[in-house]
Amino acid sequence: MDSHLEQSIIELKELLRLDERTDIQELLDYMRVQDIAHALMEVGEHDLGVVFNLLEPGRKADVFSYLETPHQMRLLEASPRDDARFILSEMDADDLTGLLQTLDPETLRAYLRLLPFRAIRRALKQLNYPEDSAGRVMSPDVVAVDPDWSLRRALAFIRRNADEHSNNVIFVVDQDRVLLAAVPIRHFLRAASDRPVRELLSDADPITIGVSESAVEAARKIQHYDLETLPVVGETGELLGVITVDDVMDVLEAESTEDFHKIGAVGTLPLSPQDASPFLLYRKRVGWLLGLVAFNTIGALMISQYEEAIEALVVLVFFLPLIVDSGGNAGAQSATLMVRALATGEVTSRDWLRLWGKELGVAVGIGVTMGLAVSVLGLWRGGADIALLVAIAMTLIVAFASMVGMLLPFILNRMKLDPATASVPLITAIADLGGIMIYFSLAVALLGLATP
Amino acid sequence: MDSHLEQSIIELKELLRLDERTDIQELLDYMRVQDIAHALMEVGEHDLGVVFNLLEPGRKADVFSYLETPHQMRLLEASPRDDARFILSEMDADDLTGLLQTLDPETLRAYLRLLPFRAIRRALKQLNYPEDSAGRVMSPDVVAVDPDWSLRRALAFIRRNADEHSNNVIFVVDQDRVLLAAVPIRHFLRAASDRPVRELLSDADPITIGVSESAVEAARKIQHYDLETLPVVGETGELLGVITVDDVMDVLEAESTEDFHKIGAVGTLPLSPQDASPFLLYRKRVGWLLGLVAFNTIGALMISQYEEAIEALVVLVFFLPLIVDSGGNAGAQSATLMVRALATGEVTSRDWLRLWGKELGVAVGIGVTMGLAVSVLGLWRGGADIALLVAIAMTLIVAFASMVGMLLPFILNRMKLDPATASVPLITAIADLGGIMIYFSLAVALLGLATP
Repeated sequence: MDSHLEQSIIELKELLRLDERTDIQELLDYMRVQDIAHALMEVGEHDLGVVFNLLEPGRKADVFSYLETPHQMRLLEASPRDDARFILSEMDADDLTGLLQTLDPETLRAYLRLLPFRAIRRALKQLNYPEDSAGRVMSPDVVAVDPDWSLRRALAFIRRNADEHSNNVIFVVDQDRVLLAAVPIRHFLRAASDRPVRELLSDADPITIGVSESAVEAARKIQHYDLETLPVVGETGELLGVITVDDVMDVLEAESTEDFHKIGAVGTLPLSPQDASPFLLYRKRVGWLLGLVAFNTIGALMISQYEEAIEALVVLVFFLPLIVDSGGNAGAQSATLMVRALATGEVTSRDWLRLWGKELGVAVGIGVTMGLAVSVLGLWRGGADIALLVAIAMTLIVAFASMVGMLLPFILNRMKLDPATASVPLITAIADLGGIMIYFSLAVALLGLATP
Repeated sequence: MDSHLEQSIIELKELLRLDERTDIQELLDYMRVQDIAHALMEVGEHDLGVVFNLLEPGRKADVFSYLETPHQMRLLEASPRDDARFILSEMDADDLTGLLQTLDPETLRAYLRLLPFRAIRRALKQLNYPEDSAGRVMSPDVVAVDPDWSLRRALAFIRRNADEHSNNVIFVVDQDRVLLAAVPIRHFLRAASDRPVRELLSDADPITIGVSESAVEAARKIQHYDLETLPVVGETGELLGVITVDDVMDVLEAESTEDFHKIGAVGTLPLSPQDASPFLLYRKRVGWLLGLVAFNTIGALMISQYEEAIEALVVLVFFLPLIVDSGGNAGAQSATLMVRALATGEVTSRDWLRLWGKELGVAVGIGVTMGLAVSVLGLWRGGADIALLVAIAMTLIVAFASMVGMLLPFILNRMKLDPATASVPLITAIADLGGIMIYFSLAVALLGLATP
């Protein structure tokens, strides 16, 4: 965080403690709305309302839309009906939808009742698009001009109607509101103002996203084509809204966070660990952990098949976690590399065969290195036989686990599941199973332990 | 990937196979430069040069700057000197710096020699800023206007001098080039054109980033304040360049990828796994794995202290991986949650105490659940004594590992190290050590195994 902002937050907390309301107001006047929102989420629940009510009315809706949902809810619940109505009706449509989509049906109805009819209709329409779709994150307030207007008329129209956020690009639509082009406003400035808009249109179709396509896909398009705004269209190509690059940064960050949590075997968490309740955190974690216990039980049952061998040669236990864990670690590396590369699009599902060959080479190289390292330990703890056993076992297990870690994300992707479901703990559990099987069957075969 | 683009790539490969150069040219004419770059990275090394040479000269530099560095290098190496000179001198300054900073000193000198003197000086200046700093990713080509000019004069100046990318905001500087304001171009359009620029300036200081600050910090500022462009300034506030939101998306994505790789215990990989050589992949992975072997050896040595106990009660081995792995998994969850929350700024290092209390509660809850689950297995495999042992051990180990997973990222952060260094395999290794110690000392204490 910015040290300047950090300073302001400390000052704000101090003024709250002293209850110096005039000074708080003065401090707020000098802060930007995003910083105020950030500060509000740092002060306690009670102070949140105190500070918010000290804001100039004109800044309230702006600050409000930069708050995280739980803080927005807390404020609305504590506000008198008229204040809540004012804030909700002043919010940008996309921010409002972002809030409304998290509510349970009853609260949603209560909040909708506070809004004017037009806003209700618009919000319901947007909530009707699929979750995480382009339609949900777009701003539906988009102005567009007619190709037969003069540039002067078009610019004047834009100046009158467009809001702050969306007029670096001017959208041109036909009579059925089908999008014809997205022209950068600077092109308007360069041409003579009595020429028709039509002359600025190029042959190329505008880059668009369908309203039901995923918001992540929209983000990837904006990133791939270096766009500032991406028009959202319906089935017949009609302009329905616009997604801007700042919306998209949040979408991509949320997507990365989701993958990050998945790779650590945490369920999708809609809130930061700071804001999530202990029970939510418990719920999102315990399922995976119990599932993995079931998985590990299979491994334990395998080990129990070899109890005789272990009793005959207890030093085998010494190397068990060492070798099995190394497999898990190597598999974890392969899986994280692949999951991320698939997520960013650096690698697509068609690349699996080429990568598989490369991964096999890398894995064998790593396996041999690790095998040599562990064979030194083997010599020390158990002599030449054990050294040979652990070296071979390590090589095979590392190679096996790397293959699993590499291929599982591709298999999940092919099955239309999220590759990040190949979490490190899951890969580790699979690698453990394979490792136990490889290690003990090798031990039995090489050391003749089955026939004591 | 877009299905339309995928189709074009298949068509391109087919035309390359048939060597239909005229058709390839026609296909390229209809493709956008970003799509051509994407397609070029999908065709083989030989075809890369073939297709690139079929491009109109005017599009070559544009397509080139969207290629990943290894592909850029391959093209430059295969190009005649004059072609290479042409491409390099047509590139935007920030893209050129992005390429040059990856070169070894000798290649760098060779390429610099191809450039005009002004470009060399500019490139060297930019390469002088610290790695991953705002100065490295900024575009130094930034035009600015004088506060005393009329709006008409300022707009005309911008139209003549600014390139495509950077004129949604107009920068206003004083005589020493100190930045006074960043005014959205739409404000210029709204005011009468004979008024001085000065009238559009507000009291608030413009949001800027220092040239030596990190590019990630710049990205966070752009994200936090919803900016399209962020001016980069020197020590006295002089305007040195500009960072745009599209540069920043790549910075954030690279940062997420780095964290992702670290959490899977892979070293920082400057390339996608697709482009990285097998040896580079080997090198980035084997170090961590060997380090973890050393760590696991300590665990193995601990186990060997309990060989007598194991020989007396071999069923202990059955539960060992089950319990120890569960600790690792719970720790992995805590670590991924914290690493990501610290990276996105949802959580700061000052929050550790509050989160620690919450985590302890969650961890004990999870531990008890897991303990109950595993005690059923314990009853089945070894009776009431074993059930009690594994239930208590599981609870303690899960709670211990969760604490480690939660706290280690904060400790690393406090030590100015990257929290993501608390990788899942590292947490697992630490959890294993603790788990082995807790499990066997509990076994000895509860079951009286030390005195057989």
